[in-house]
Amino acid sequence: MLIDERLEDLRKKINSKVPAGISISEVEFEGPELVIYTDDTKKFAEQADLIKVLARELRKRIVVRPNILEDPEKAATKVRAVVPESAGITDMFFDPDTGEVLVEAEKPGVVIGKNGATLRDITKEIGWTAKVVRTPPIESKTVKDIRQYLRSVKDERKEFLRRIGKRIHRDVRSKDKWVRVTTLGCCREVGRAAFLLSTPESKILIDCGEKPGSSSEGFPYLGVPEISPLSSLDAVVLTHAHLDHCAMIPLLYKYGFDGPVYSTPATRDLSAMLQLDYIDVVNKDGGVVPYSSKEVQEYLKHSITLNYGSVTDIAPDVKLTYHNAGHILGSAISHFHVGDGLYNIAFTGDFNYDKTRLFGPATVQFPRLEAVFMESTYGGSHDIQPSKKDAETKLYDIVNTTINRGGKIVIPAFAVGRSQEVMLTLEEGIRLEKIPKVKVYLDGMIKEATAIHTTYPEYLNPDLRTQIFKEGMNPFLAECFEQVDSSNLRQNVIDGDPCIIITTSGMLSGGPVMEYLRALAPEEKNCLVFVGYQADGTLGRRIQKGWKEIPLGRRETIMMNCEIQTVDGFSGHSDRKQLMRYVKHLQPRPERIFTIHGDEKNTIDLASSIYKNYHIQTVSPMNLETYRLV
Amino acid sequence: MLIDERLEDLRKKINSKVPAGISISEVEFEGPELVIYTDDTKKFAEQADLIKVLARELRKRIVVRPNILEDPEKAATKVRAVVPESAGITDMFFDPDTGEVLVEAEKPGVVIGKNGATLRDITKEIGWTAKVVRTPPIESKTVKDIRQYLRSVKDERKEFLRRIGKRIHRDVRSKDKWVRVTTLGCCREVGRAAFLLSTPESKILIDCGEKPGSSSEGFPYLGVPEISPLSSLDAVVLTHAHLDHCAMIPLLYKYGFDGPVYSTPATRDLSAMLQLDYIDVVNKDGGVVPYSSKEVQEYLKHSITLNYGSVTDIAPDVKLTYHNAGHILGSAISHFHVGDGLYNIAFTGDFNYDKTRLFGPATVQFPRLEAVFMESTYGGSHDIQPSKKDAETKLYDIVNTTINRGGKIVIPAFAVGRSQEVMLTLEEGIRLEKIPKVKVYLDGMIKEATAIHTTYPEYLNPDLRTQIFKEGMNPFLAECFEQVDSSNLRQNVIDGDPCIIITTSGMLSGGPVMEYLRALAPEEKNCLVFVGYQADGTLGRRIQKGWKEIPLGRRETIMMNCEIQTVDGFSGHSDRKQLMRYVKHLQPRPERIFTIHGDEKNTIDLASSIYKNYHIQTVSPMNLETYRLV
Repeated sequence: MLIDERLEDLRKKINSKVPAGISISEVEFEGPELVIYTDDTKKFAEQADLIKVLARELRKRIVVRPNILEDPEKAATKVRAVVPESAGITDMFFDPDTGEVLVEAEKPGVVIGKNGATLRDITKEIGWTAKVVRTPPIESKTVKDIRQYLRSVKDERKEFLRRIGKRIHRDVRSKDKWVRVTTLGCCREVGRAAFLLSTPESKILIDCGEKPGSSSEGFPYLGVPEISPLSSLDAVVLTHAHLDHCAMIPLLYKYGFDGPVYSTPATRDLSAMLQLDYIDVVNKDGGVVPYSSKEVQEYLKHSITLNYGSVTDIAPDVKLTYHNAGHILGSAISHFHVGDGLYNIAFTGDFNYDKTRLFGPATVQFPRLEAVFMESTYGGSHDIQPSKKDAETKLYDIVNTTINRGGKIVIPAFAVGRSQEVMLTLEEGIRLEKIPKVKVYLDGMIKEATAIHTTYPEYLNPDLRTQIFKEGMNPFLAECFEQVDSSNLRQNVIDGDPCIIITTSGMLSGGPVMEYLRALAPEEKNCLVFVGYQADGTLGRRIQKGWKEIPLGRRETIMMNCEIQTVDGFSGHSDRKQLMRYVKHLQPRPERIFTIHGDEKNTIDLASSIYKNYHIQTVSPMNLETYRLV
Repeated sequence: MLIDERLEDLRKKINSKVPAGISISEVEFEGPELVIYTDDTKKFAEQADLIKVLARELRKRIVVRPNILEDPEKAATKVRAVVPESAGITDMFFDPDTGEVLVEAEKPGVVIGKNGATLRDITKEIGWTAKVVRTPPIESKTVKDIRQYLRSVKDERKEFLRRIGKRIHRDVRSKDKWVRVTTLGCCREVGRAAFLLSTPESKILIDCGEKPGSSSEGFPYLGVPEISPLSSLDAVVLTHAHLDHCAMIPLLYKYGFDGPVYSTPATRDLSAMLQLDYIDVVNKDGGVVPYSSKEVQEYLKHSITLNYGSVTDIAPDVKLTYHNAGHILGSAISHFHVGDGLYNIAFTGDFNYDKTRLFGPATVQFPRLEAVFMESTYGGSHDIQPSKKDAETKLYDIVNTTINRGGKIVIPAFAVGRSQEVMLTLEEGIRLEKIPKVKVYLDGMIKEATAIHTTYPEYLNPDLRTQIFKEGMNPFLAECFEQVDSSNLRQNVIDGDPCIIITTSGMLSGGPVMEYLRALAPEEKNCLVFVGYQADGTLGRRIQKGWKEIPLGRRETIMMNCEIQTVDGFSGHSDRKQLMRYVKHLQPRPERIFTIHGDEKNTIDLASSIYKNYHIQTVSPMNLETYRLV
């Protein structure tokens, strides 16, 4: 059936189901959703289960929107008139994609009103569906910019969403039934994650990252015929915002991709932030990023966000569901249901099966599951991480020793994830007087990343969420933290009193950490503390291995006279024990597990141990292979 | 370097090496060869090692040709004038690709003359290089037609060869080094052989067959992005002429392929014959072959033939060498040397490690070898074939019993290979009076296939070759054999005396065998004897399994009342024991073996046994997978 005939068919069915008195003006596919436009949104809402019934019968995700949305500026004024001033509205975000207005307020309860009365009044008044959140305690410039940018391209986005909607809901034409995964990177190595999931109908790319510390092998294999032309891709699915998973997504738009990138909302914002920072850092280092901020905008223009647990059609024969991965804010295990019950695959992305200060443990239960592509960063049999408590005690000891001898502590960390975990540890250390009351400087994108964390509190674990919103208790706002934004301030920190510096990049592949290294590494009293995984080939790994002279550029050499410490246990990754426990607890038990995203020996070791212990077929694939799953 | 600059460079080097007095007029790539055009072919020939030296220094296959070739008709007259009439010249084939004239004569020695004097005189007279062969005892219409066709398109071929020559000798551009094989058919099944060998530079398709007995799965997976567009293929390499390996080659030209198909000369002729017959048989059965004789011509126009042992550049980073596979006439194990010593892979195609009445055993020694893609038709642990002697005794018994009760014996067989083996057995049986002196009727393409065998005696084993050329001893010309060309004659055979009928197709998927089946199967006195492998899904396999009522078309049913026998041991394939012995004797010992071209359980069983016995890594791949070899 042609897609327009199918839409016509859906329109007729909807009209026949909807009670008299509700007029349907338009029915359109927009991205993964079927949008019903009506003048009678309120009447629609009064029919308690109508949307659910339609969704079940039509097997589509249904959204109801008013025909005409009030102009945002006028609407904002009307909202402020309806809501009592005591609510403390700080901002409103009108999302034309969804017809929703997000009201940020200090007292969300007042915006909601008794039994939701005030919210309903807003909708009645302006047409937009109102949602309310507590005002984030730290404002994120990234989030603001992105929301503003998306508003500015709303007409293009509407057109894009309708095009993609029609593409997703096209007929399945092939009689063949197979599911394949092609490895385009990240096999027997850490970095340049990129996997192609393909069926006779669809092609989906999972992640598209860079390889830290590598110039020659920095890219996934995007030149192979399997993903050529890029316009043949139905979708890109992003697991989380780290650069080894997302850095090359903007490049896809440069080379002809014009489809959607799915991610959680937090991942969208964090990844765009990190991509822009990546361009900046690499340029400063004299390197070349093969795209510009223009392509990052293209990515944002084509982004579609999904929350955990929402089952979403992303191709005629593929449904995607995101689940918590426990790794960083917004990180998601991506679960694909292919065909009508044909096959189910999960890509874990990076995940943590331990509860951390920030997140709950990764999801381990799925409705169905036949194959898992599983990260193996700490997959080697000796990769046992100390407990978080031991790690924290060790960090406190290092801080105490270094401060006592008048030194400074430099902690290179990913802006997203590790930094916040270490911040929370240090804040508690100072608060409970386990370490001296020194300044903790944040350099690079760390503060901005922290702000994004407070914008999406629903991704944090409940304890932290509660703490953040209790006045005066938000650990991220503790007075020990100070942001460093400029070379001047950086010099002040370097020249100043003993202190702690958390700074990017996490593997010493550029960024402000290099300035601190140049100034502080030659002095014995200082200490460089690694808290995260250092990939092969990165400067961080070399220093860990004991290199004493670090060449910097062509002429300069840094003498590594300072103390070098590694504190394991802050990782956002599951360690070997947790990886094995995760497989043990997986429900249902998968038929095949592919160990990826780890050094060669780790992926092989993990694959072999899983097979021996649980008798599940395992593979440690190489890059550029294709596996037939069914 | 641009290809034209490279040619210029080669021209200079050649000029500097060639002694004064020899003028070089042109140097061109033509297919895999570097052709030097000169007016002084004779002087060139006098410089004993000049061509060898040039070939070694330039690392190219060098061919020297005269600038101007005498018009074939005039040249033929001149040849007849030079050669004594007693030579008995029966035909001459002028091959403009090579500048050679093939003189067929009853007494080749007379054409050669004392110490080759007459041959040299011919070349001096006409420019063409003369080669001489004994006149084939049975004339092949196919061979004649193909040679004539190729002569008629010689200008197009010259252009094609120069285009391909430039393509083969282009610069290697990629810095990446990898070798991959993608399985497009023939994995865990018998049929639709098609494997893609790819590197960052080149894409080579090995075989492109149909799946006998299957309409829905009849094609290799030619629609996947890995081989799209077909024009991106550098070459097709054909292992042998059976339809499950070559039937879909003409289709490639319909869909945009315009590169070369490599094969041995015998494979070229046999495959074109079988493709044309395939069109004919399928059409008669009411089926549709997706190409016509026009595309078979395209295939011939783009064919490049290679003899066993000739190391040939077929892409900038791939050299192909054919080795005897012992399976059918011209069948070849295809050995690929990739990169400059990077990797070596052999595709066995179908092969026989036993000496047969027709061929020597398959080659087991290679200069280098890391991976083998190996057929597994009889790979199951119970697939032990009786000895040839036992098989022949059993066949003689069946013939005797059936003839004695007044019945007829129908032997369905592939036109190429099995038929000739059975013919030789029956001829000996009659000659040595082990079976009665009955007629052996040949139907389908069998006689023509036999003629092609006598055209290429160099592929046969030495005993048979000697026999064929001994007057009155050629077993293929024994008086028991009689060709059946028409429905009338077929009816005569059916109505006539007890006899033996060898007829195509070998798996009862159409062809004249169906007429015999319809007429003879319902009578108990007759006997249907399978002598070859019956693939899953074919009518042959069903009858073997014991089906008693065979539906034919929509209305007709054949009652299988006749005796059904299977005589194993005539196979052109290695049986399980031979497959294991082959692996054991392989030199050098490969690192990886892929078991293909066999039922699912056979490929898995063989892979597992090879691993257990020889500790070589084995895989029984599925279709649509890609393996990284290096």
